[in-house]
Amino acid sequence: MPSLIIRNADWIVTQNQERDVLRNSSIFIRDGIIREIGKTGSSSADVEIDAKGKIVLPGLINAHTHLSMTLFRGFADDMQLQDWLQKKIWPLEAKLTDEACYLGALLGSAEMIMSGTTSFVDMYFHMEHVAKAVAESGLRGFLSYGVIDLFDPAKAKSEQDNTRKFFDYVQKLDNSRIKFALGPHAPYTCSAEMLLWAKNFAEKNRAILHIHIAETRREQADFQKQHGMRVVEYLDKIGALSKNMLAAHCVWLTKSEVGLLAKAGVGVAHCPVSNMKLASGGVAPLPEMFESGIAVGLGTDGASSNNTLDMFETMKVCALLHKAHRWDPTILNAQKTLDLATIEGARALGVEDEIGSVEVGKRADIILLNSKAPNLAPLHGKDTVISDMVYSASSANVDTTIVDGHVLMQNREIRTFSLEKTLSETQEMALRLVGA
Amino acid sequence: MPSLIIRNADWIVTQNQERDVLRNSSIFIRDGIIREIGKTGSSSADVEIDAKGKIVLPGLINAHTHLSMTLFRGFADDMQLQDWLQKKIWPLEAKLTDEACYLGALLGSAEMIMSGTTSFVDMYFHMEHVAKAVAESGLRGFLSYGVIDLFDPAKAKSEQDNTRKFFDYVQKLDNSRIKFALGPHAPYTCSAEMLLWAKNFAEKNRAILHIHIAETRREQADFQKQHGMRVVEYLDKIGALSKNMLAAHCVWLTKSEVGLLAKAGVGVAHCPVSNMKLASGGVAPLPEMFESGIAVGLGTDGASSNNTLDMFETMKVCALLHKAHRWDPTILNAQKTLDLATIEGARALGVEDEIGSVEVGKRADIILLNSKAPNLAPLHGKDTVISDMVYSASSANVDTTIVDGHVLMQNREIRTFSLEKTLSETQEMALRLVGA
Repeated sequence: MPSLIIRNADWIVTQNQERDVLRNSSIFIRDGIIREIGKTGSSSADVEIDAKGKIVLPGLINAHTHLSMTLFRGFADDMQLQDWLQKKIWPLEAKLTDEACYLGALLGSAEMIMSGTTSFVDMYFHMEHVAKAVAESGLRGFLSYGVIDLFDPAKAKSEQDNTRKFFDYVQKLDNSRIKFALGPHAPYTCSAEMLLWAKNFAEKNRAILHIHIAETRREQADFQKQHGMRVVEYLDKIGALSKNMLAAHCVWLTKSEVGLLAKAGVGVAHCPVSNMKLASGGVAPLPEMFESGIAVGLGTDGASSNNTLDMFETMKVCALLHKAHRWDPTILNAQKTLDLATIEGARALGVEDEIGSVEVGKRADIILLNSKAPNLAPLHGKDTVISDMVYSASSANVDTTIVDGHVLMQNREIRTFSLEKTLSETQEMALRLVGA
Repeated sequence: MPSLIIRNADWIVTQNQERDVLRNSSIFIRDGIIREIGKTGSSSADVEIDAKGKIVLPGLINAHTHLSMTLFRGFADDMQLQDWLQKKIWPLEAKLTDEACYLGALLGSAEMIMSGTTSFVDMYFHMEHVAKAVAESGLRGFLSYGVIDLFDPAKAKSEQDNTRKFFDYVQKLDNSRIKFALGPHAPYTCSAEMLLWAKNFAEKNRAILHIHIAETRREQADFQKQHGMRVVEYLDKIGALSKNMLAAHCVWLTKSEVGLLAKAGVGVAHCPVSNMKLASGGVAPLPEMFESGIAVGLGTDGASSNNTLDMFETMKVCALLHKAHRWDPTILNAQKTLDLATIEGARALGVEDEIGSVEVGKRADIILLNSKAPNLAPLHGKDTVISDMVYSASSANVDTTIVDGHVLMQNREIRTFSLEKTLSETQEMALRLVGA
């Protein structure tokens, strides 16, 4: 694998412990690992990227999505959640095929590469075909098969088989960028036995356990009625919490539930755009999560409830939402917001030693933004670069996307697969699915 | 002036009375006016634009900004409003020059052209130089000199002189795209006499009267203390409300104040991103405004409190904010949100007979979006185009921007002035201003 130098970047936003922002610096990469950072003007490499006029960031981490649902983008909006699921999404999902999920995942991968995301956590169906697309794209994916047993032991058995089958598939794939994850859908769709089985499987295989928790108030009300306790209290009581758990949403939590998650080492995937669009009500208690030490990442959720996979948009909306909600413009500043999309996201996934920052020894998951755009001008200096990345940058400023030292996009041209072919094939597939 | 045909657009989102969305249609433009829309396959024109693969929209209308403040983008964020003003913005504004305001306006114009805005309402200082930049850019600007008399008669006199001087300048400029507007800053910075003087001036000259109203809760508390009534009640009592008035923000209103604005025919410029970022608290009561018949437009506010001039972003955040705030995903749907940025914005400005929709007889203010992008795929059909424009589109999808039949940008290349020169000159000016 060719070595790579990113030469003379105007700014490198490292997201290291000190949150250093470097001026006019270079990055040398060999075997997918960052080897040197600094004034390495004289080093040479097999491949050179001229980063003059560019701003370098760690690749963004999307901590929660359903990639193949990109096929449903824009198909059903402005609806009540239950109508949306029952009348629109579930009937479409029943028609999904291997091929549809492959194409949807490839389309979503294109969008992520072009908007600066390098790693993501997925939960869906037909996961072998999602894995195939993601491997082709070059992205780093933590992929889970979405398990729903509806408290039926027979269904539980077949869902465990499906999970094991996907696990075996990923082992055989032997692609270091494709990681298997557990995917019990939610505490209201999976039995306690299933949640514990998944927990053990995750611990044994050092895998993420991805799950939806407390997205709606109704979920909490139902748990209170059925179990006489709140969702997280229930998960704690049955022993289902663990440090492998990455819990999406976590909107409707009490402070005491936040404490339980923190104690167990659970990570959270906060999805502000999806929560707002579906009008779930409430706002995830991020300041309380920070205070308790929970690692919080940011997710877009699926394109059918967002409707993009754009992490730059998600960062900005996240900061806006919490400032507005708490009447306090300082509650979530630009640096902290960028942290959520990078190093804190990595911590939520338990992979902060590998990705999430531009540091020597880490995997080379890196994006370059072209600063010669009106929305990034003027650039007042080192103290404002982070703010520019969160409040002013657009995903369209991303010029180059690198994962594991592989250049997936340069000059906004995707290199690993044909965007044009993907667009035309997904368009055809989408129309076939909706029967248009 | 050459005639123009936009040929075979995949979709034309007309925003006419029926909100028609047309398939495979063309638009013929002569003398800056839309003359024909439809299957005009055989018409010919001096200039042809091939719109295959493109989606056509009316140009977006930014109902509230401070264009030259684009120079301050990212300079001061994550601060309490009073700190932000006193420690950062006011000291910088004191250093502003004609040249700085010209350059800031040109940079802001570049950003607006590239993000699909064709008309905007501005309030600031050094307005002759803003007008010069806007005229150069080709945009349609409603420009007001920001008047602040601080209840001092001597200051009032000089502010009126400044306003008249700018009025004369615009008359002499004789550019149909540059419109003079009145700009009394706010009821808490302008005397009653000044507000009435501005109202009369606006009525006499059929100009917009642009003003900030009820941006913060503090403003309402102060009025209650000083006048024993709320801001809009005060404006009503002194007779300052009028149908020429375009009131920015209007966050902290009671239903009774909404009723007073409606009765007087006041238009509102809603600025969701700025309100959220500055954490003004509360949410402008849009559903109540709609119910009372108030014309509501959308604004970005200045780039120092947003930090972009991106109306696509503002549309999406607007829809998200109101859905989340009211716990109702149907409260502000995609069609209504697009209306705010187009035809309803035009109505708020009192120019709905001229702009805001793609209709025969209207000024040709039109944008083309390239639909061959992953974030706009798949496109399920006629029923989802509007949703795609509001929830999925990014300003970077804008390929062509046309104002009054003039092509200001094509293939994302600005034609009316040099972007590169503007970027380098504004960068230099910004660093000089902040003393870096």
